[in-house]
Amino acid sequence: MQTLIWKNLTEQEKQQALMRPALSAAESIKDAVNAIRDNVQRNGDKALFELSKKFDKVKLDNLIVSQQEIQAATARLPEALKTAIQNAKANIERFHQAQIPQAVDIETQAGVHCQVVTRPINRVGLYIPGGSAPLFSTVLMLAIPAKIAGCKKIVLCSPPPIADEILYTANLCGVETIYAVGGAQAIVAMAFGTETVAKVDKIFGPGNAFVTEAKRQVSQALNGAAIDMQAGPSEVLVLADENADPDFVASDLLSQAEHGADSQVILVTPSETLAKSTALAIKRQLAQLPRAETARQALSHSRIFIAEDLAQAVEISNQYAPEHLVVQVENARALLDQLDNAGSIFLGAYSPESMGDYASGTNHVLPTYGYTRTTSSLGLADFSKRMTVQELSPQGFQDLAPTVIQMATAEQLDAHKNAVLVRLEKLQKENS
Amino acid sequence: MQTLIWKNLTEQEKQQALMRPALSAAESIKDAVNAIRDNVQRNGDKALFELSKKFDKVKLDNLIVSQQEIQAATARLPEALKTAIQNAKANIERFHQAQIPQAVDIETQAGVHCQVVTRPINRVGLYIPGGSAPLFSTVLMLAIPAKIAGCKKIVLCSPPPIADEILYTANLCGVETIYAVGGAQAIVAMAFGTETVAKVDKIFGPGNAFVTEAKRQVSQALNGAAIDMQAGPSEVLVLADENADPDFVASDLLSQAEHGADSQVILVTPSETLAKSTALAIKRQLAQLPRAETARQALSHSRIFIAEDLAQAVEISNQYAPEHLVVQVENARALLDQLDNAGSIFLGAYSPESMGDYASGTNHVLPTYGYTRTTSSLGLADFSKRMTVQELSPQGFQDLAPTVIQMATAEQLDAHKNAVLVRLEKLQKENS
Repeated sequence: MQTLIWKNLTEQEKQQALMRPALSAAESIKDAVNAIRDNVQRNGDKALFELSKKFDKVKLDNLIVSQQEIQAATARLPEALKTAIQNAKANIERFHQAQIPQAVDIETQAGVHCQVVTRPINRVGLYIPGGSAPLFSTVLMLAIPAKIAGCKKIVLCSPPPIADEILYTANLCGVETIYAVGGAQAIVAMAFGTETVAKVDKIFGPGNAFVTEAKRQVSQALNGAAIDMQAGPSEVLVLADENADPDFVASDLLSQAEHGADSQVILVTPSETLAKSTALAIKRQLAQLPRAETARQALSHSRIFIAEDLAQAVEISNQYAPEHLVVQVENARALLDQLDNAGSIFLGAYSPESMGDYASGTNHVLPTYGYTRTTSSLGLADFSKRMTVQELSPQGFQDLAPTVIQMATAEQLDAHKNAVLVRLEKLQKENS
Repeated sequence: MQTLIWKNLTEQEKQQALMRPALSAAESIKDAVNAIRDNVQRNGDKALFELSKKFDKVKLDNLIVSQQEIQAATARLPEALKTAIQNAKANIERFHQAQIPQAVDIETQAGVHCQVVTRPINRVGLYIPGGSAPLFSTVLMLAIPAKIAGCKKIVLCSPPPIADEILYTANLCGVETIYAVGGAQAIVAMAFGTETVAKVDKIFGPGNAFVTEAKRQVSQALNGAAIDMQAGPSEVLVLADENADPDFVASDLLSQAEHGADSQVILVTPSETLAKSTALAIKRQLAQLPRAETARQALSHSRIFIAEDLAQAVEISNQYAPEHLVVQVENARALLDQLDNAGSIFLGAYSPESMGDYASGTNHVLPTYGYTRTTSSLGLADFSKRMTVQELSPQGFQDLAPTVIQMATAEQLDAHKNAVLVRLEKLQKENS
């Protein structure tokens, strides 16, 4: 990891040092996704069977995972893991249930009744990547809020063969239908529907470059589907002072680095001593990691920033706007009011990122790539939408009418004014 | 307006009848916006001066509107209009203040403290179109929630010359800087910044096809800016029964139709009598409108649907998913629980759309084009973002550790597990 002393950098060097690698789907990926999209929209299920054979090397008889398969997966899973998943589920449920919004229901003036009404998004599609490590924790993070929000249809796609952990967790969380379909073809199938795959209104979940590009495409298409958020590589910024335990700091940096060679890992500290001891601890711990090679690649483009003091360290973090922000300083909570632009914040020595990744209750689907400046971490609100409602009594209407007539006249919208006038006339007739 | 009897339509005809016109920026618009973007990113202010001269036929000395100009505009404005704007502001403020979210702050299990913290988006840019009719009401709808959310920088762009109403309203609502810049160049300037125009994090507001395309482009660009929502033509669906006043219904349909030739105007009713009397009332009222030609064009592709009963009428509305939904039936409120997929709902005979467009308190920036299925009407939340926070006590950490170890092991993320193990070891040492 490169160590940089913040105050010695020029403004341009600072910006450069906080920059993420350029992110744009190669034209070849765009073209491949275009072809898949065309194929799936044209040929439906047939295309899905064909693409599963081609990309996943699996010849499917059925796109829908049967209840028997789910039961068999459940039976195979160790009890200890099932208990762990259930514990995590309970915490995630509590935290997302606490996000049910209060009703907004007021009179803005006498007789003018205004409300915000929250409704579930009807049909949601969850995407879970395949690969050697089954990301069943993401099933919890997506299916639990969908269920609490009250989404009427919750379906899930994952490339075949689907791991037992994913089948078990999806079933536990009330996913209605599990499709053994992965990649860009799964995103296209859920966005537009096929004979077997239900069309959904919004698609959630992580994926590789093809999945990300497919999500981008369907979110821009007419009659496509909305998506949860734009995705970039995962990131952590650890903000630590001289009181932090270098072994803890190193372990947090490494848990991000093992995610992928493109992971972003940053340490910001006012303590050069901690920076050095952390670098040593990283070496020690790295030697014992099975994913050491991945982590090493991620670390090669990661940085340690030496700040003048904690205030400057906070400034650097707010400017970088990290997905995960781990705060290991004395009295971490006292810093909270100054921390901005982070997806999820982990306060204190005993709140490592892994806790939030799995089981503290917070959601691990978070904005990356600096989008934390404007985008919220995934929550119940993403599975709902807000509608406003107004109801005016005849008296409330009459009281507000002159205001609206003035404004509509000034905006030269005569039909808007007329909608008020025809009602006023009727009220005057009734009253005379 | 074309009248269709819903039950006589095939499934395909139903879908066809509810379809919006295809919406995609012509390649010529994309190319023009690309060129403008390139020019502004390369030449900054110089490009803005040049483009204002070219498109707005205005030779500017300064991009920033001075305090003197704002004072002069304020002095010129009639008192009655200022009072109307202030009345509207008070209602809009009350309704958006009521949207300040409650804190989410719980222990998901003993010693595991989880929170949702809401923070303002730092820098926001508001866009207000120019033209003969100054849309100052939109200034209220954007600047008021930005101010309540606590956005630190609120700037506004509008093409020169800017109407007095817009200058007055922006100043009244606490907009920090007003730039006399319009069109795609204003969007690009706010997204990337120029010497004079401040870079913002998120851009809000309506505009023509060039503005819409520019918003799309900057929202997809790295280091660009987030945008409020994708925009399509404005829409109203009036759901009325035989008790509705045909003059009221006609006036609501026309206030939408006068917005633009591409406006969508739909009446759904179980009453053929009402459908006929409304059609007559439209003819009568249309004759007296200054914007009759625009409204006539909008009406030419608008539809009346005859439903079998109110339940089917509700179904049609939920399927169409309108921006504005006006409900003129006996006991309109009783229908509310069944209404879904609408931007803003207007209940009862004395709640015409104009009331919400200007002054009831609800926001008039709403999703169009069926996006109400997944997108919320604009509100305080759009000017803020949610971050999650967790803090575990050593005991809370120890209690949850076995769950996280089980799950990290199953996901083959050893560094994640290790971040838990190093802490457990330290706690065990301390306790022994």
